[in-house]
Amino acid sequence: MFRHVVLFTWADGVTEEQQQAIAAELRTLPGTIDVIRDYRVGLDAGLNPANRDFAVVADFDDAGGYVAYRDHPAHRAMVDQHITPIVTQRSAVQYEC
Amino acid sequence: MFRHVVLFTWADGVTEEQQQAIAAELRTLPGTIDVIRDYRVGLDAGLNPANRDFAVVADFDDAGGYVAYRDHPAHRAMVDQHITPIVTQRSAVQYEC
Repeated sequence: MFRHVVLFTWADGVTEEQQQAIAAELRTLPGTIDVIRDYRVGLDAGLNPANRDFAVVADFDDAGGYVAYRDHPAHRAMVDQHITPIVTQRSAVQYEC
Repeated sequence: MFRHVVLFTWADGVTEEQQQAIAAELRTLPGTIDVIRDYRVGLDAGLNPANRDFAVVADFDDAGGYVAYRDHPAHRAMVDQHITPIVTQRSAVQYEC
């Protein structure tokens, strides 16, 4: 399995409702991008104060699946429309697991 | 399910062998900490140049399981011995998923 992990910090003033709306939008992607095997996104639970705000973990059969997702027009459009306007920090890793 | 995600950047000079040794140590934790349901760690695959170096994704039944892992002496000892000495950046999120 090949896993993609990305953590985001949002700009000041981004509400929980906005984040829940982004999560709901992202959760439509497995219906469009068929290389996705598992897709779990969500807002930080607030247990540790230094945390980032939001996580996306996506699983694929292999690195090629991840690259197809990364470059898929539906994914790029969602990033451009919903994430880029409000993100201040992004950290990512992809790994075989 | 409750998921814990953490991404690390290591200090300059940390080798792939050191990282593989840390990964192997971490992978012993599910044998010791019985609240862990799934545990996948690994080195960044190098597909995207701005990435962090290393990921840990751990799944639990609920937030209580995560807290038990976070505070477990075997986990704390591993962090103190293998991670704290070489980490320069740490980003984390825990989320219900």
